[in-house]
Amino acid sequence: MASTGKGNLVVGQSGGPTAVINQSLVGVVQEALRHEQITGIYGAHNGVEGILREDFVDMRAQSNYLLEEVAATPSAALGSCRFKPKEEDCKAIFEIFRKLDVHYFFYIGGNDSALSTGIINNIAKQQNYDLRVFHCPKTIDNDLLVTDHCPGYGSAGKYVAQAFMGNDLDNRALPGVKIDVVMGRNAGWLTAAAALARVQPGDGPHAIILPERSYTIKEFVEKIEAIYTKNGRASIAVSEGICDKEGNVWLQSDIIRAELKELGMDVLNDWMDATGKIEDEAGGAKLDAFGHAQLSGSGALADLLASVTKIHLYRKLGKKVRLRADTLGYAQRSFAGVVSETDAAEARESGRAAVQVAVSGVKDGSICFRRLKAGFGKYLCESFRAELDDVSGVDFPKGVKQYRPMEDKFISECKFDVTPEFVEWAKPLLGTLAVKGLLDQVPVKI
Amino acid sequence: MASTGKGNLVVGQSGGPTAVINQSLVGVVQEALRHEQITGIYGAHNGVEGILREDFVDMRAQSNYLLEEVAATPSAALGSCRFKPKEEDCKAIFEIFRKLDVHYFFYIGGNDSALSTGIINNIAKQQNYDLRVFHCPKTIDNDLLVTDHCPGYGSAGKYVAQAFMGNDLDNRALPGVKIDVVMGRNAGWLTAAAALARVQPGDGPHAIILPERSYTIKEFVEKIEAIYTKNGRASIAVSEGICDKEGNVWLQSDIIRAELKELGMDVLNDWMDATGKIEDEAGGAKLDAFGHAQLSGSGALADLLASVTKIHLYRKLGKKVRLRADTLGYAQRSFAGVVSETDAAEARESGRAAVQVAVSGVKDGSICFRRLKAGFGKYLCESFRAELDDVSGVDFPKGVKQYRPMEDKFISECKFDVTPEFVEWAKPLLGTLAVKGLLDQVPVKI
Repeated sequence: MASTGKGNLVVGQSGGPTAVINQSLVGVVQEALRHEQITGIYGAHNGVEGILREDFVDMRAQSNYLLEEVAATPSAALGSCRFKPKEEDCKAIFEIFRKLDVHYFFYIGGNDSALSTGIINNIAKQQNYDLRVFHCPKTIDNDLLVTDHCPGYGSAGKYVAQAFMGNDLDNRALPGVKIDVVMGRNAGWLTAAAALARVQPGDGPHAIILPERSYTIKEFVEKIEAIYTKNGRASIAVSEGICDKEGNVWLQSDIIRAELKELGMDVLNDWMDATGKIEDEAGGAKLDAFGHAQLSGSGALADLLASVTKIHLYRKLGKKVRLRADTLGYAQRSFAGVVSETDAAEARESGRAAVQVAVSGVKDGSICFRRLKAGFGKYLCESFRAELDDVSGVDFPKGVKQYRPMEDKFISECKFDVTPEFVEWAKPLLGTLAVKGLLDQVPVKI
Repeated sequence: MASTGKGNLVVGQSGGPTAVINQSLVGVVQEALRHEQITGIYGAHNGVEGILREDFVDMRAQSNYLLEEVAATPSAALGSCRFKPKEEDCKAIFEIFRKLDVHYFFYIGGNDSALSTGIINNIAKQQNYDLRVFHCPKTIDNDLLVTDHCPGYGSAGKYVAQAFMGNDLDNRALPGVKIDVVMGRNAGWLTAAAALARVQPGDGPHAIILPERSYTIKEFVEKIEAIYTKNGRASIAVSEGICDKEGNVWLQSDIIRAELKELGMDVLNDWMDATGKIEDEAGGAKLDAFGHAQLSGSGALADLLASVTKIHLYRKLGKKVRLRADTLGYAQRSFAGVVSETDAAEARESGRAAVQVAVSGVKDGSICFRRLKAGFGKYLCESFRAELDDVSGVDFPKGVKQYRPMEDKFISECKFDVTPEFVEWAKPLLGTLAVKGLLDQVPVKI
């Protein structure tokens, strides 16, 4: 057993890209370069997949200038993976670490990454092998446990807020109904960030629909009708996780299908069936509990939302309302050029802190963030080490959520908006937002 | 007849928003403030619609600070319209101008705006009324006649390029096929801007599909298969105007429907029929020449493209390939915070120049841009006055296009890409793009 802590370091990235996951990578590398007990600095291609095939980039061969460029670039520079290693994979990884004299392992990813990290850690402990194992959290969804917020969220939130600024301005200029579907299936944090687009009273989004609450079609379309009737326009933010009262997302919900029937919108059930058959033809769609194909079409939810609204408004108002639905898509997690400066700095810090804690002698952990009350209203945040199992949720009793939904205090009573408290909470994380200037509405006296 | 040129000014905005249409508005206002023959400066709400209801904002009441904020804000600050005035509307507008002592009219918009401007101009001439009438071009599509390029295009192009940088980086990190649908039904300029996302050889987009050429489904899916087989991944840019050999867009094409049948993809014809029935239910879909409903679903084209590709790859490769299609959506024209500095400066210039030319005694025109050869390879551009009719295409013989498609020299022989010449042409218009840093692929020697 090498008890000196001297040895090689492996760093990897996992899960969906973010705008700042490379900041954490560069934080790990830059801090590692400062400690002589760390010898080789190996970047694993595609996370644990690269470790298993012993495919590493030499991070010592990168210039400082290039590292800074990479840090400012979205998506995972080492490549990522969606691979959740099983116990035997973790064993194989550990054997490779032992063979290659790796004593430091840093894994930047979501809660699955914390879990994998924890398993490898346990094997090393059993084998009495000196391995320092750290998890650096990242996710645009912000649904990781323990941490106040997660690197990746602030920049994605900034993208969403600026997209909704644009939506509001576009919708003002050419009034109608605009629906935008935002990422985040389990938690509404990212959808909620749309609220930061508001600058003046009356600004959109005029409703924010979150996966933490449930909605019927009737509630959904009547809310939009009320907004449109009052303002002559409506900009609506909808989480891709919009669900029925049993927690099933709309596209996979039997309750929604029954409601469509009841509302005389069976054309939409037919359309969902037709869409399911395409999935079938392309390799077999998974079937839900009710035998309906699960739809993965990127625009399918937006089209469903637009369709129920269009049909409802046509029936109620007797006219075709200008209606458009967009799905914000991958740009939320990897658009180049929209980064929150707070988020970038904290992501870098999480990588640096992980190495600092590791070389100080601590064996494992996840780097989380907490706000300091000493800020007197000003945003101040520090990183701290949390237990891997607390972040991965591995030891949680069955039925306890392994992700963090939005707190009730952040969701308004009416369930169609966030609270001012959420806006205060999110504001510093998104950093400086784009300018949104509106004319003074001084009429010409004729 | 007031021959002194003294009088009120009306400025309006029309058509789809852009990131810099407010720059042109502020250019008009700031220049107007410098000339004492211009008395009132009236901003018409929602273009000609606001003029017809005599609904004006006092642009003299805006502070300089606010004007600069508005200039930096996307979408039309005065509100816009999709209204194409008929001869009698133009007559009504002229009568309002006469009544309100308006002698200057500036209309910022596309070729329909140039047309409306021209009609009002002719009425004023017939009536021997001193009216200075100018059109300031704007469009993200860049398909206006006469001008080398159009304010609005550079910023939209920058958004598209940065979205495709993100796509490429995302697609590198988690390989698969990613298809993105870009705006521009008649011309491929905006889709072509995706090429500017490339920094290194092998960077996506790996194919660019333009409305200036026609494609069969077979050509489309086999191209993607070839790219995917070679690189293990594919990022594809597709214009929303992708069409068959008769020039009909895919979703409205009988040729495409026949090909779907022939390819044994009838599930997609069924899906299109189902989609058409929704449109029907929501106020009646327009029917095309073949009796098929025209689909306006925002994600419908992306879903069609994804579906044919998914089914083809599953049949050919015997596996489900990671496949996702996004529609870039309204963010292309109104996302807050992504602006080309070249575009912003030129849009401002077009507003200023219009007023300068008007007060110099010229009665009408459209402000266009041309490149200066004297730049010795460096980008240099100047504005110039063009005839309204040349820009609106009003006098063109039947069958001659009233918009400008991409030149042949900008489209590669294989029809799946743009030429290096296009990249050179577009580069200065998009301004400074986001950083895209990639690691040096130096393997660790084990």
